[in-house]
Amino acid sequence: MRNNPQINQHGELNHLLTLEGLPREILLHILDTAASFVGVAEREVKKVPLLRGKAIFNLFFEPSTRTRTTFEIAAKRLSADVLNLNIGASSQSKGETVLDTVDNLSAMHADMFIVRHAQSGAAHLIAQHVAPHIHVINAGDGRHAHPTQGLLDMYTIRHYKPDFGGLRVAIVGDLMHSRVARSEIHALNILGTREVRVIAPKTLIPSGVEGLGVQVYHNMAAGLAGVDVVIMLRLQHERMKGAILPSAQEYFKYYGLTPEKLAFCSHDAIVMHPGPMNRGVEIDSSVADGAQSVILPQVTFGIAVRMAVMSILASSGS
Amino acid sequence: MRNNPQINQHGELNHLLTLEGLPREILLHILDTAASFVGVAEREVKKVPLLRGKAIFNLFFEPSTRTRTTFEIAAKRLSADVLNLNIGASSQSKGETVLDTVDNLSAMHADMFIVRHAQSGAAHLIAQHVAPHIHVINAGDGRHAHPTQGLLDMYTIRHYKPDFGGLRVAIVGDLMHSRVARSEIHALNILGTREVRVIAPKTLIPSGVEGLGVQVYHNMAAGLAGVDVVIMLRLQHERMKGAILPSAQEYFKYYGLTPEKLAFCSHDAIVMHPGPMNRGVEIDSSVADGAQSVILPQVTFGIAVRMAVMSILASSGS
Amino acid sequence: MRNNPQINQHGELNHLLTLEGLPREILLHILDTAASFVGVAEREVKKVPLLRGKAIFNLFFEPSTRTRTTFEIAAKRLSADVLNLNIGASSQSKGETVLDTVDNLSAMHADMFIVRHAQSGAAHLIAQHVAPHIHVINAGDGRHAHPTQGLLDMYTIRHYKPDFGGLRVAIVGDLMHSRVARSEIHALNILGTREVRVIAPKTLIPSGVEGLGVQVYHNMAAGLAGVDVVIMLRLQHERMKGAILPSAQEYFKYYGLTPEKLAFCSHDAIVMHPGPMNRGVEIDSSVADGAQSVILPQVTFGIAVRMAVMSILASSGS
Repeated sequence: MRNNPQINQHGELNHLLTLEGLPREILLHILDTAASFVGVAEREVKKVPLLRGKAIFNLFFEPSTRTRTTFEIAAKRLSADVLNLNIGASSQSKGETVLDTVDNLSAMHADMFIVRHAQSGAAHLIAQHVAPHIHVINAGDGRHAHPTQGLLDMYTIRHYKPDFGGLRVAIVGDLMHSRVARSEIHALNILGTREVRVIAPKTLIPSGVEGLGVQVYHNMAAGLAGVDVVIMLRLQHERMKGAILPSAQEYFKYYGLTPEKLAFCSHDAIVMHPGPMNRGVEIDSSVADGAQSVILPQVTFGIAVRMAVMSILASSGS
Repeated sequence: MRNNPQINQHGELNHLLTLEGLPREILLHILDTAASFVGVAEREVKKVPLLRGKAIFNLFFEPSTRTRTTFEIAAKRLSADVLNLNIGASSQSKGETVLDTVDNLSAMHADMFIVRHAQSGAAHLIAQHVAPHIHVINAGDGRHAHPTQGLLDMYTIRHYKPDFGGLRVAIVGDLMHSRVARSEIHALNILGTREVRVIAPKTLIPSGVEGLGVQVYHNMAAGLAGVDVVIMLRLQHERMKGAILPSAQEYFKYYGLTPEKLAFCSHDAIVMHPGPMNRGVEIDSSVADGAQSVILPQVTFGIAVRMAVMSILASSGS
Repeated sequence: MRNNPQINQHGELNHLLTLEGLPREILLHILDTAASFVGVAEREVKKVPLLRGKAIFNLFFEPSTRTRTTFEIAAKRLSADVLNLNIGASSQSKGETVLDTVDNLSAMHADMFIVRHAQSGAAHLIAQHVAPHIHVINAGDGRHAHPTQGLLDMYTIRHYKPDFGGLRVAIVGDLMHSRVARSEIHALNILGTREVRVIAPKTLIPSGVEGLGVQVYHNMAAGLAGVDVVIMLRLQHERMKGAILPSAQEYFKYYGLTPEKLAFCSHDAIVMHPGPMNRGVEIDSSVADGAQSVILPQVTFGIAVRMAVMSILASSGS
């Protein structure tokens, strides 16, 4: 992604595919725009007409009710027409290629595609293929990126801890398989975070992760010492048995965020989680529901951030 | 449900969870409000802007196209934004709890949840959990209650037979497993119905049903004698074979509503059914489609009743 | 269909069930109306309020994301409320009949049904059953008809080759199982096409097809000689193995549209396909994506044609 295909020749954001290499001013512009949308959700009529008459397609090759719902709400609050396509169940099984599907929907005058796909690079491939006036948002591609999640996490951190230059942030858990963590690390570095740490057992740390500008810890006491923000990652069920981890209980004992482990952090540290949570696996309920948890504000801010990304893309020249 | 969690401190309906213990004046207010919405559906533009910008979630943990559709239509006629979540297929399978799902959707600024769940008490649990400005409608929980069905049945009866004090009503069929019947019995008693009868084979009558204020019959000739309203219940396919009933044919012979059995009723009795019907099992086609059937008006009134419940909840203070 | 149940007593189109026997002036009126909608999709706000407040049901007894999506987009551009019902998964499995489902939705004040069903005649049956103010569009019934596909193909041909009286059109492929081909042949004949040819192996030609007014070829060189329009049909995967065809490779060799075979046609012939394509089976990628292909314009015109049909039906007296 050297040449930033998501930025057009005017320097505007035309697609949102990854946070890697995103200019700092564009990232901040998204967060500032999101701030203006936070209030919309609290109005009596929670709608603005910015995207009226636009056709936004939720193109989910990998099912996800939660992420699809956040984009659907965001689009409806912008007054767009939203069409949900669960692709696994239809065209794909008929042998049509992804790009043929995209071409067909483009011919129906789609304005924007929200793409989730199990393969890394799928949203990128689609963005390179579509006509210039069509915008693509990556809603998660394989192990590669989940940029709107990364952005909403930055929004949340900034809301509680505005000075990134003074912050220590720890990301805990399955770094190996997490597109969320990858997007967060890129964003934290762009915003000049003082220190980004990752904490996980060796089997869940990808090789070469230090190259992303993070410090690696395998122990919670050391890794959490003095941090201001803890981001817990979801542990997929399929990792919990067999070769990678001995069991969920064992994982919780060493890496689950309990009140005792939270005490290693700065006293006013915030706790984040992208959801859905496995209570009792990566996080204890008393922490998830505790005073330092900002897990539900993350969800609220996520709608505003997605509204911001959609409206910025829609207003970019092509 | 002694202390009526669905009524707020101002005596307003804040959730609709059950008809048990619902004050008579609130029940009548719903029916009167529904009457004002019956006309909307016959206009050229079938919409009123009462819930514009509100986000209503169809939260169906148990699939039901028909019930989901009636709520979706009602919400769209009120100009709300409707989001359909078929939960079985996603978050639940990821191990998230029902209340975490609800918390997440609430954080997206949901205004109302329409909840269907296979477990009795699910909607109640959610109503106790959500913030005061969020409203919950029970769209069927286990064998417990299906209050909007009960209300639309009352609307239908009142439309054709306004004087409940003079009415004999018989509910026929699988009382054992029917949340619909339970809601109907509560509503009929609240409205002061002269006589409520239930008719079924012994294996389909729950023990202690007399405590609900009904008379039990096992024979159609006796049970239907002189009644003004017959409500037939759907017989689930899984009851028709094996221990509970010998066969669908046998059931039809003794309890299926045929013209011959209908003749036991008052000459101007109306015939109701919550749908979907098993023609030739609990009801004969000539009766279902006959002059005394009000089965399709029930569906029409059902939309107006759901619009009434939604608009009353949305206007309640929190 | 002698007496044209889709035309009301005022000679207006009341349902769209088949193109067989459709009066030429009505067919041309649909195409002309569609032309007025082509521009809507290119506006900043792609909506017109023609069907505001109307309830349109996508009643798909046979799943099809692509076709359902085109109708959903068309309806939303007309400002209608669209409800998607995937019937296979719910009421049908509960034993309700198709007509009971339709009666129920009609009682909810449906204005229009878009029906897809695996059985020929299903849309026809529903149209005969519903009240006069409700309109039915056949979105594909068994092997019988797919009239909106036929109409959008006529729109596309007319766009590039306005004079049907001078045109030679070849339809290539699985004529035996294709409702698309049947609708195209009727439309081409109504519009006075000079010559309609069908090209396929003997196992894929229905007996008596000559009675529809076409010439039958089993060889591409002869069949394509001098034609102005080639319509390739999709080959269903289940035909490719076993009794009907030896293999996909064998089919491609003899009937797949390659640049070499395309050269048999008139030099400015256009290439069409209803989608989804099997690249490398019925059509070579270089032809599908080539200068003579109008496959994506077909999709674009398809939205306008469906908007035209919906708005014409909605404005017909009952």
